[in-house]
Amino acid sequence: MNIHLNSLDIQQIEHRKRAALINSLSGFKSLNLIGIASREHETNLAVFNSVIHLGADPALMGFISRPHSVERHTIENILQTKFFTINHITVDIFEKAHQTSARYTREQSEFEAVGLTAVYKNNFAAPFVNESKIQIGLELKEKVAVQSNNTLLIIGEIIDLYFPENIWLEEGVLDIEKAETLTGSALNGYHTTKLIKRMKYAKP
Amino acid sequence: MNIHLNSLDIQQIEHRKRAALINSLSGFKSLNLIGIASREHETNLAVFNSVIHLGADPALMGFISRPHSVERHTIENILQTKFFTINHITVDIFEKAHQTSARYTREQSEFEAVGLTAVYKNNFAAPFVNESKIQIGLELKEKVAVQSNNTLLIIGEIIDLYFPENIWLEEGVLDIEKAETLTGSALNGYHTTKLIKRMKYAKP
Repeated sequence: MNIHLNSLDIQQIEHRKRAALINSLSGFKSLNLIGIASREHETNLAVFNSVIHLGADPALMGFISRPHSVERHTIENILQTKFFTINHITVDIFEKAHQTSARYTREQSEFEAVGLTAVYKNNFAAPFVNESKIQIGLELKEKVAVQSNNTLLIIGEIIDLYFPENIWLEEGVLDIEKAETLTGSALNGYHTTKLIKRMKYAKP
Repeated sequence: MNIHLNSLDIQQIEHRKRAALINSLSGFKSLNLIGIASREHETNLAVFNSVIHLGADPALMGFISRPHSVERHTIENILQTKFFTINHITVDIFEKAHQTSARYTREQSEFEAVGLTAVYKNNFAAPFVNESKIQIGLELKEKVAVQSNNTLLIIGEIIDLYFPENIWLEEGVLDIEKAETLTGSALNGYHTTKLIKRMKYAKP
């Protein structure tokens, strides 16, 4: 049996159930930890499931931030310091990664609170997650305002990139499944993956 | 062994290899088919791996469009007609879904070209993919320009939603793994998933 909900039906669903439902609809999500350091060299770390690819030349990635969310420390610091890191979440660290979504105080580093290790490399201004296998250092390029619901699309250019040599395939792709990167569903689902097929470039 | 690439190293990688590498970095991606009808009631269908959740109240979803890509027919029609559908890609239809990325002419419907069925329901102006288990009808709300690389973030509000009754869990989440929704990697990888765990709301 199929369920049909229109926009009125959706509005009438209880707040938390509606959030869970709507968060399920985009499909599977990327799972990353975003690391930053404040001007005072305090570190913050937050889990994000909205990191997306924006372009390869220049090499740009983006993520969505909500105005009054737990992540606001992350955003404030990125806007001030201009640098942040994106670190893939693997099976070994997903529970610690999830725990960064708790409302810690501004003074408390989520690195310490959840038991992950901040590491600085090659003079990059933001800390990487040492336990993460794919680590990306980015510089803020643009902050795009979404009027419809006061969210921000934060865009960074890739400055430094670290990954295990044995996952870089001939055609340029990283085998992120071999790197044990996870995928997410809704707000709380953590999943492993199994490759069915890599498709060829499609022609009519 | 870890590889370190800086922004100069990345720029020097051959064009297609660089695109494959950078497209791998965000992690796993959503896989959806976006369906539209032109004013002349011609249909188009295109695979997108950039659909994201934007907010639950109002219920908003977005996706990234590039200015001169294969998807331009989709975008032109959305901007004209204001309505589009997002349809999850499952294991049964991923090869047909991938084939929609071929450069068909404007007159040719990708529905027919790849063998998927356009279905109209409840007077919604855009066609759903009949073979898809999770089908979402949206109205254009906002078009946000990304200056850094001339991409667009297209934002729609959910008007109609269809899904199988047996995947709606108690807490409001849809079990998209049970619905056989796939996840993607880079530009060409199609993967099934296996749930490890649903985590509880995190507290300090």
